Amino acid sequence: MENLRRRIQVARGEQSGDLLLRNARLVNVCSGECYLADVVLADGYIAGIAAPGSGYQAKEERDLEERWLAPGLIDGHMHIESTMLQLSEFARLVVPRGVTAVMLDPHEFANVLGREGIEYVLDAGKDLPLTSYVLLSSCVPASSYESPYKVMHAEDLLPLLSHERVLGLAEMMNMPGVLTLDEQVLAKIEATYRHGQVVDGHAPGLRGKDLSAYAAAGVHSDHECTTPEEARERIRLGMWLMIREGSAARNLEALLPLVHELRPPRVFFVTDDRDPQDLVARGHIDSMVRRAIELGLEPVEAIRLASYNTAQYFRLYDRGALAPGFVADMVVLDDLKTFNVESVYKDGKLVACAGQLTVPAGGAQMREAPNTIHIGNLTLDKFKLPGQPGKVEVIGIEPDQITTLHLQEEAPCLDGELVADPARDLLKLAVIERHHASGRVGLGLVKGLGLKRGALASSVAHDAHNLVIAGTNDQDMLHAARALEEMGGGFACVVDGVVRARVPLPLGGLVSLEPVSVLLRQLQALDATAAELGCALAHPCMTLSFLSLSVIPALKLTDQGLVDVETFTLLPLQRR
Amino acid sequence: MENLRRRIQVARGEQSGDLLLRNARLVNVCSGECYLADVVLADGYIAGIAAPGSGYQAKEERDLEERWLAPGLIDGHMHIESTMLQLSEFARLVVPRGVTAVMLDPHEFANVLGREGIEYVLDAGKDLPLTSYVLLSSCVPASSYESPYKVMHAEDLLPLLSHERVLGLAEMMNMPGVLTLDEQVLAKIEATYRHGQVVDGHAPGLRGKDLSAYAAAGVHSDHECTTPEEARERIRLGMWLMIREGSAARNLEALLPLVHELRPPRVFFVTDDRDPQDLVARGHIDSMVRRAIELGLEPVEAIRLASYNTAQYFRLYDRGALAPGFVADMVVLDDLKTFNVESVYKDGKLVACAGQLTVPAGGAQMREAPNTIHIGNLTLDKFKLPGQPGKVEVIGIEPDQITTLHLQEEAPCLDGELVADPARDLLKLAVIERHHASGRVGLGLVKGLGLKRGALASSVAHDAHNLVIAGTNDQDMLHAARALEEMGGGFACVVDGVVRARVPLPLGGLVSLEPVSVLLRQLQALDATAAELGCALAHPCMTLSFLSLSVIPALKLTDQGLVDVETFTLLPLQRR
Repeated sequence: MENLRRRIQVARGEQSGDLLLRNARLVNVCSGECYLADVVLADGYIAGIAAPGSGYQAKEERDLEERWLAPGLIDGHMHIESTMLQLSEFARLVVPRGVTAVMLDPHEFANVLGREGIEYVLDAGKDLPLTSYVLLSSCVPASSYESPYKVMHAEDLLPLLSHERVLGLAEMMNMPGVLTLDEQVLAKIEATYRHGQVVDGHAPGLRGKDLSAYAAAGVHSDHECTTPEEARERIRLGMWLMIREGSAARNLEALLPLVHELRPPRVFFVTDDRDPQDLVARGHIDSMVRRAIELGLEPVEAIRLASYNTAQYFRLYDRGALAPGFVADMVVLDDLKTFNVESVYKDGKLVACAGQLTVPAGGAQMREAPNTIHIGNLTLDKFKLPGQPGKVEVIGIEPDQITTLHLQEEAPCLDGELVADPARDLLKLAVIERHHASGRVGLGLVKGLGLKRGALASSVAHDAHNLVIAGTNDQDMLHAARALEEMGGGFACVVDGVVRARVPLPLGGLVSLEPVSVLLRQLQALDATAAELGCALAHPCMTLSFLSLSVIPALKLTDQGLVDVETFTLLPLQRR
Repeated sequence: MENLRRRIQVARGEQSGDLLLRNARLVNVCSGECYLADVVLADGYIAGIAAPGSGYQAKEERDLEERWLAPGLIDGHMHIESTMLQLSEFARLVVPRGVTAVMLDPHEFANVLGREGIEYVLDAGKDLPLTSYVLLSSCVPASSYESPYKVMHAEDLLPLLSHERVLGLAEMMNMPGVLTLDEQVLAKIEATYRHGQVVDGHAPGLRGKDLSAYAAAGVHSDHECTTPEEARERIRLGMWLMIREGSAARNLEALLPLVHELRPPRVFFVTDDRDPQDLVARGHIDSMVRRAIELGLEPVEAIRLASYNTAQYFRLYDRGALAPGFVADMVVLDDLKTFNVESVYKDGKLVACAGQLTVPAGGAQMREAPNTIHIGNLTLDKFKLPGQPGKVEVIGIEPDQITTLHLQEEAPCLDGELVADPARDLLKLAVIERHHASGRVGLGLVKGLGLKRGALASSVAHDAHNLVIAGTNDQDMLHAARALEEMGGGFACVVDGVVRARVPLPLGGLVSLEPVSVLLRQLQALDATAAELGCALAHPCMTLSFLSLSVIPALKLTDQGLVDVETFTLLPLQRR
């Protein structure tokens, strides 16, 4: 109440504000215009906006000298785990680029830590120069063939809906569950609806009547469109189109023509998954605004798709625009068309200037994390794979894809065992349950890594994040597993019992505790080492991390065994 | 939950729906397109939309033969009392025109009946083929110089915020109260904000820093713009622009060019005040859509401003568009450009066809109403107006305006009394407190009615709705007051002790119990009688009804006396 009174008086010029930005070139996403104005703030909100020479007073004043002043950018859907960075380190990277809010789906943490994983992300988001909202991860595990830390039921999630920074239910990947009326799925959707919150969608390839049903169920959006046809169908059905530009999946260029054609009110930008290399090289949502302008979208419209529209979708009525009564999340631009950020204000305070944070990143930054890798007394015999001569099912890697090929090869058989055969680029693949030290290990063969010696291991293994290890021999594979356990997770490359490269990701086995610069060096060293050992892939451990994702075709391996995603059944390696 | 399950299965075509509309030319306000489609409904909601020949099944099917299918129209701000019709009779008129929802500010009922007046309107809105939402009347009385039934404090209003059909706070007319931090005003705004609801604005002529302050206070909209400059300023400040086209105040033509120029996301249509003659002759929100198209707006855009945008402003997420999961309020059009309505569906059921309701209007239609006119044993001496020769303050009527002139005339003085002087068109004017029979009477003189004999009386007298009576002699004025008391309110014309014409408005002294046809005949007879008596005005009683509105310049009369609106003080008739 007091804030409201002060805001009114500051707007009228009867009281001095906290900050006055004079001669701003206001980027107005409500009117679609840019024009010169004075903007005065009070208690973190915009109070008054008037023509230059307004006579407004404030404790602190700054002349923007006709620089552009735009609303802070918002990423409508992303997974912080993909950056392998803590939220505070992520903020250090993206806030200076003009990002002031992100909507997080802590899906990987939820698989590894359950509800506590979601609560950790909510805690880590406190006191940052970045508002981090959370959408509740809706599908843990991704399928019944995966073994997360624990299955997340509706009753585990729903108490979190009333958290002030929770905005709804995250991407509903379980399309079959929606369409076949799965009790748990509908319970989650219904509860979110009762809370007046949104249900994010995830519907790759869904069309026609099934898409109607998905929308009729109350799913409000989709970020998996790759073609204008898919996007048009979603907009026609009243869904919000999230245009995604991730590090791998890039849809902006394909979908922007539709924005030009329809000017739909229901469209905004998201990044979904950005890896640290890409974050440093290209940036974040700011890179989408820049690219959209290059592709011919008016700058104000491009910014609207990264601010106002996003806030409207998430029902955040006092964010995403610069107007009286709106939260003062603002970006000062030296140049509009190149979205060249000069400084950033969060809740009315300067937080970044010339590409650097001007305040501590704050947040619950961790120096060490509890080890979540539990494999117990794993022994060599766990890697033994009985078999006989003849055909064997093999997972075929497709470079730069998260899909795999379903191959059949002559079995590399020795003394009644299936073994790696580097000469034919056939490696042994193991997925080791790592949450409860159950000793459960899924074994198979993989082609396409190119490794001639040693083993590669990752605790990032979508979506359940068990240990996925490919190797030329069981000893190095076991050694790699031990190395991951010792690090609390991450990536490791082992040759002849020696760890030749390691990337510690001790936070849930997913996220680094290091600054991005250190993390990038570690990743580079890992890739270089793998290359020395004959690996032809750019980022072999990222490729490994998708070999156990049981919902993406064609053939995958989990701790439960070989999954034929086409038929969605467990497959024996060899037919008897 | 059951409804959701069925909706999903109907959308998939696994279950038959309730209604299938084949070969509709869908007017899609989300994509901005029109195209042929089959639309299947379940439980009052749209379930599935697919290309013609979808194979959808339903209990009832209809081939629209490529007629247009548009979302039902919504009026974002109106006063039902201005129509002088009960909600059920109003619905009978406007639903066949394609109106399926209205946002009501029951401001007049609130002045006459207090909170019960608002509750009456909520009750009357039940079971209609029209959804009537209510915004809580924020300013009762309009000023301290008016005497309503009771003053409405925040604590009287706020319990109603949680009613399922209450959407927020109605037009905040008390701009000074907002700007000067009036406790009651801010309490109402704050409580509405906490409920996550909207605060409608009313800010004629407000500009610059005061408008910023009004917006900063959390007022979300304004319907009082008359010029593009005012409208642009409001849009720039993040307020929603309600373009109003009432019977008297008409702003569509002036403001539409701004919509063409800016294509702002925050604009929609409202009627505010439409009288019954105008409703029958021109129509309602449908007339605005028609006119906007004539003025060059694309039909789909015009319809969006009367459906989708309105629903978005009021945070009604499943209304205002035709898509799966949206409420099936739909209009079938024979022609799009002329918005020629063939039939109307409400909650998925046919409610109107060929200009007629096909269902009972329903609602709490009243046959009689409790008499709210209480003047006690009013006597002739109450009309006596002591005075002496010299100047006297006189209210000057401006034809077709609700503003008045502040005149000074030679006092018509007889035996130490001020009396009417029809020869100079000076009539005596009385405003009689009628809620509590306090016997309080305000007296003055009015010029411009032209009445040569008798008296005219109205119980419609903005905003407190006391009795306003103009006459050539005290006897006829007293008789007219008694006539209104006997009718329970309305309009009356009395000559030589005989009631020559009457329009009973027994519902709060504001609204008729008759069908519109009867009401129109009564109004016509009244105007004709007044004309016979020398009155030059088209609708003299409507003019009377604004002579006591103490917030519109220049000189007004209330039961408390003569109000100089410029100085906002009570004025003696004659300076001693």
